[in-house]
Amino acid sequence: MSSDQINRSDSFTWPVRVYYEDTDSGGVVYHSTYLNFMERARTEWLRALGFGQEQLAAERGLVFAVTHMEVQFVAPARLDDLLKVSVTLVKRGQASLNLAQEIILEPTGRTLIRATAKIAMLDDRFKPTRMPDDFLAVLR
Amino acid sequence: MSSDQINRSDSFTWPVRVYYEDTDSGGVVYHSTYLNFMERARTEWLRALGFGQEQLAAERGLVFAVTHMEVQFVAPARLDDLLKVSVTLVKRGQASLNLAQEIILEPTGRTLIRATAKIAMLDDRFKPTRMPDDFLAVLR
Amino acid sequence: MSSDQINRSDSFTWPVRVYYEDTDSGGVVYHSTYLNFMERARTEWLRALGFGQEQLAAERGLVFAVTHMEVQFVAPARLDDLLKVSVTLVKRGQASLNLAQEIILEPTGRTLIRATAKIAMLDDRFKPTRMPDDFLAVLR
Amino acid sequence: MSSDQINRSDSFTWPVRVYYEDTDSGGVVYHSTYLNFMERARTEWLRALGFGQEQLAAERGLVFAVTHMEVQFVAPARLDDLLKVSVTLVKRGQASLNLAQEIILEPTGRTLIRATAKIAMLDDRFKPTRMPDDFLAVLR
Repeated sequence: MSSDQINRSDSFTWPVRVYYEDTDSGGVVYHSTYLNFMERARTEWLRALGFGQEQLAAERGLVFAVTHMEVQFVAPARLDDLLKVSVTLVKRGQASLNLAQEIILEPTGRTLIRATAKIAMLDDRFKPTRMPDDFLAVLR
Repeated sequence: MSSDQINRSDSFTWPVRVYYEDTDSGGVVYHSTYLNFMERARTEWLRALGFGQEQLAAERGLVFAVTHMEVQFVAPARLDDLLKVSVTLVKRGQASLNLAQEIILEPTGRTLIRATAKIAMLDDRFKPTRMPDDFLAVLR
Repeated sequence: MSSDQINRSDSFTWPVRVYYEDTDSGGVVYHSTYLNFMERARTEWLRALGFGQEQLAAERGLVFAVTHMEVQFVAPARLDDLLKVSVTLVKRGQASLNLAQEIILEPTGRTLIRATAKIAMLDDRFKPTRMPDDFLAVLR
Repeated sequence: MSSDQINRSDSFTWPVRVYYEDTDSGGVVYHSTYLNFMERARTEWLRALGFGQEQLAAERGLVFAVTHMEVQFVAPARLDDLLKVSVTLVKRGQASLNLAQEIILEPTGRTLIRATAKIAMLDDRFKPTRMPDDFLAVLR
């Protein structure tokens, strides 16, 4: 097993409430809004690791960009629902991370969304670049 | 002084974090997104009063709609900023409420947005209607 | 080859202009916004086939929902860019459609996004249901 | 009458189609989305005058920011509606413009939104600055 394999049990979760802005006239959350919710959870996961994205951009000229997503829309969320969004590191490369994410309806625990996201580190010219050592260190 | 005048000191506040989805390529929060933040605070204020909007719509066929807003964009918020959004009831009518709202940057307390919003109660055919007695009662 | 296989050459395209609302503080289009652009193109493709979604919902209680997407973010779009979004029917089932979609930068023709979307027909209780005969007929 | 008074008859209009992304679970367009529609029309008005905002930012470090809006939400728009958004220059200052905007439902011409917007020119440090002479010239 590769040293890049990381224990799936280390999941980070973040709560999200559904507001009118998130819904559409079908009566449920608009499909792309789930990607926003997943990005919020990734942002809070990075912040919890000590790496605020505003700081990464301002001080080091580094941004994370999503390069690939696969999203399974299992069941819809509705106005006022309380959701739990998870982030699980599946694979750590030198310049990118593979994440698994889920969106769960509280309090039932029903899975609404299953997704994978690949995020790549880019420099200030949007070129892929190696993630900083201090960041890689906290992912070990 | 009218009995409809309500003490401005009774402000409700709600925290909002700025994510990438909220910003634009000018480097700051996109102007209409502040209205979403203010709507989240109104929603949480109503929930705190015991009136979830999903429940109001599903059980009584009632929705609140914004009929007028005035917004002063004083200073911009940026990625990762933590904001505090306030709701103050200024005037209570029979079928509508006048609210004052502010968005404050934490932890400095700097005012970013000053706004007024008039919200009207509508029935399931989008016609203005009197607010229910149990709701009016909690606003006294 | 199955009778459900449909000629990939029959692509529908729709132009989209990038506005401030679509961008984020990274200076490029926010990743989930490309899904909105792809949904606009699907909507216009359905309209061109004679099936407005508002009409489908109001008159027949039918809505299309996205059940799966895979999205490859190849290169970013920026403010003021003019994009061309394509929809290609790849497979027609009885209750769902598999589509391939691309977002192209004009006038260079550079591919920014490659995606697949599966959309399912739902009845007014959000249960999968067979697509109407007159709709299936125009897809032949 | 001041030389800054400009003929209200010179209105610019831009068409906008309502998609699912624009609506909310109340069945109508989400209130802040009308501000996006009005910003699209202002952007196209500026482009029609020869001043693309991406170019203004990249080449001169100048951006327009909304500093004040007043919005009257007269009637709602719905999924699939075709709207016409107008921009009328009401007052031209040295560093800001006062605009009147309306959103009209096609083909009936019913007014859905009446608004005023003040937009200010900012330099790359977000400080108010005089609008360039070549821009002021086209507004005469």
